[in-house]
Amino acid sequence: MRVEHLHAVPHLTTALSGPLHDLESHLLTNQSTIEAWFRSEWIKTPAPFYASVDVRNAGFKVAPVDTNLFPAGFNNLNPAFLPLCIQAVQSALERLAPQARRIVIVPENHTRNRFYLASVATLQEILLKAGFEVRIGSLRPDLEGPSDFELPGGKHLTLEPLERQGDKVRVADFEPCIVLLNNDLAEGRPPILEDLAQVVLPPLELGWSNRLKSEHFAHYHQVAREFAARIDIDPWFIDPLFRNCGEINFMKREGENCLRKNVNALLEAIQKKYDEYGIDKAPFVVVKADAGTYGMGIMMVHDADEVVELNRKQRTKMAASKGGLAVTQVIMQEGIYTFETWGEEQAVAEPVVYLLDHFVVGGFYRVHTDRDVNENLNAPGMHFEPLAFAETCNNPDRSKAPDAHPNRFYTYGVIARLALLAAARENAEAV
Amino acid sequence: MRVEHLHAVPHLTTALSGPLHDLESHLLTNQSTIEAWFRSEWIKTPAPFYASVDVRNAGFKVAPVDTNLFPAGFNNLNPAFLPLCIQAVQSALERLAPQARRIVIVPENHTRNRFYLASVATLQEILLKAGFEVRIGSLRPDLEGPSDFELPGGKHLTLEPLERQGDKVRVADFEPCIVLLNNDLAEGRPPILEDLAQVVLPPLELGWSNRLKSEHFAHYHQVAREFAARIDIDPWFIDPLFRNCGEINFMKREGENCLRKNVNALLEAIQKKYDEYGIDKAPFVVVKADAGTYGMGIMMVHDADEVVELNRKQRTKMAASKGGLAVTQVIMQEGIYTFETWGEEQAVAEPVVYLLDHFVVGGFYRVHTDRDVNENLNAPGMHFEPLAFAETCNNPDRSKAPDAHPNRFYTYGVIARLALLAAARENAEAV
Repeated sequence: MRVEHLHAVPHLTTALSGPLHDLESHLLTNQSTIEAWFRSEWIKTPAPFYASVDVRNAGFKVAPVDTNLFPAGFNNLNPAFLPLCIQAVQSALERLAPQARRIVIVPENHTRNRFYLASVATLQEILLKAGFEVRIGSLRPDLEGPSDFELPGGKHLTLEPLERQGDKVRVADFEPCIVLLNNDLAEGRPPILEDLAQVVLPPLELGWSNRLKSEHFAHYHQVAREFAARIDIDPWFIDPLFRNCGEINFMKREGENCLRKNVNALLEAIQKKYDEYGIDKAPFVVVKADAGTYGMGIMMVHDADEVVELNRKQRTKMAASKGGLAVTQVIMQEGIYTFETWGEEQAVAEPVVYLLDHFVVGGFYRVHTDRDVNENLNAPGMHFEPLAFAETCNNPDRSKAPDAHPNRFYTYGVIARLALLAAARENAEAV
Repeated sequence: MRVEHLHAVPHLTTALSGPLHDLESHLLTNQSTIEAWFRSEWIKTPAPFYASVDVRNAGFKVAPVDTNLFPAGFNNLNPAFLPLCIQAVQSALERLAPQARRIVIVPENHTRNRFYLASVATLQEILLKAGFEVRIGSLRPDLEGPSDFELPGGKHLTLEPLERQGDKVRVADFEPCIVLLNNDLAEGRPPILEDLAQVVLPPLELGWSNRLKSEHFAHYHQVAREFAARIDIDPWFIDPLFRNCGEINFMKREGENCLRKNVNALLEAIQKKYDEYGIDKAPFVVVKADAGTYGMGIMMVHDADEVVELNRKQRTKMAASKGGLAVTQVIMQEGIYTFETWGEEQAVAEPVVYLLDHFVVGGFYRVHTDRDVNENLNAPGMHFEPLAFAETCNNPDRSKAPDAHPNRFYTYGVIARLALLAAARENAEAV
């Protein structure tokens, strides 16, 4: 990561930021109300161990579009804020497992992605520095012993096969107190992790085999309403509209009418809001798998007919998600424009906010030079440049303009925590 | 504060650092043991709300020499680590007063010291950013209404008179949930703060009117023994020897024999340790008030006869402490050389470590150009240049040498937390 990247912040197009200005002002003015509210909410529903939240900033609206409870990308965070991560982990584990000393991280299986492994290595470093012994226990069936992987930058990561012994898992002679999942379980709950006597964070129930985006956003919708009422704003400024369909089969073209009807209804609802606030933009809808991650099977739709006019290749793409899981349920979500750009090329920049426990510990922008403002930035195989957040999200400055950098980051931190609270409520229901 | 000062670290004379090298290596190697031990200790005895710990680094020995439970100097911390302070405060107050929203800080009365007021302003900023409403309630009897004070750098601080109403205190119409003492109560417990229904942090019992340094260091001695046993080192490497006398009257020359006897015994004990480890330095002893702060009434002694050969001026100085409190009890403490120097002039640099709850959030060096390595750096009216810690104390790097900067700061953080734990045990006994 180049040094100048650690001090740069993307430009926010301000032409449309009038109402957002109001939103950010509201957040600043009501900071103590907001923080007191979060405090009481975390007591009622404790936050999951960690999360990353994809946020979109349309200038007139800021909202989460995806909440990942098994976050990767720790390697993209600003190294200057590592101490914040260390402290947050200490705080979280004191609460969750005060006697714990040893941790095994269970990562994703795709060992060819060196950037992913670099994220696991950063996570391991954070936990080590927080004062824990940490080893990596892989679920890969082809891993027969400790395997060393070289990472970008010359660092190394050692994966070891995870083994079951009675009601505990271990790697070699290392028996952890905590099993930290960094695997989203999109392919199902691995039997080796069932009914463990050890603390499993996050719980298996939060894996993608159990979770639906539509459930998350239903919780988020409720959270956004409660929050908006507190600070007296239209919840739409922070909440993406959505609808979902039952069983869909893209290959057999089953469920298309449901899709078309819902996309239409969403586009109309968005247009109504755009009219209400004088927003001269074309509404669009994002269609994606209701379970799963990694931006597979994602479609941007400006017209309901687009969902029934897919060619064979597009259908195949929509039908499959990560780990080969077939897409049978989809969520249709209000598309939110990205009005943050980076550099002379005005590359689109999408913030991803990181949370450890309920602490916002940093984030980065996905910067992509070839994409348009209403396109999905997390598509399969897509290349992006990470741009670490130049400042933390907990250090707002009332003496500056509401959209000054520290205040913009504070806004992202608030939105990300609202999404985290929705995930906490999902968790409370699931376990 | 000049920018280059935020990235600089004083030079540590390494000629004598052999055994210290061992100490720092031990701390690094045993990090997970150390952190697990601290975790279990904080469960048994929660840390006071905040503290600053004066540490001395003699190369062969690192130890605390003073623990302040009503710390000033927050304005001297590196602004880059403000987010760490914010997060630590959030974590602490969630535990101590989860429902709280409003805080009144009760500062010291000396409003002429603009640097002190700047510290109060920084503390207020940390609490504000952590999401609390914060006002300053002064005990000054001459304060009739809100008074605005200009601070270095053009900032402002508003003091308001603290008022009692029933079993609560307030400023104007602002009734806090938390009363945060930043006044060390050297002059006694103010009646206005007795028997409050509000949360008082730290408790009145920890004021200097109740506390004795010798009690603190008795606890510290025990903490150091337990800790040293864990990581298998001679506790002397982290523990300053000390003795105390009963009633002393410097003006009437009462108690001199006790002083002389104890200073002698201490000097002999130090010499024995110096011989054991081949340290070719002259032992010295620090004589100071057992209650109180601000470096008044402090004496450096290389020979027991010095304590009985004081002239009238020296006696007067030793007899009075802060707030006019007469020194009647003294503590004699092993003097620890300061072998950290700063700049071409090799100015002596003494680290002060800051803690919020049990989190080490930063620190600064007192840099003094005119003093010698065995002199007290916190003498009355003394001028020092603050040099903010360039790095945090929770981010050690095992890939670097044990005395590399991040590891030296980690060592300071460990020593400071040992002192904090001693204060926590004092607190548990007092309340």
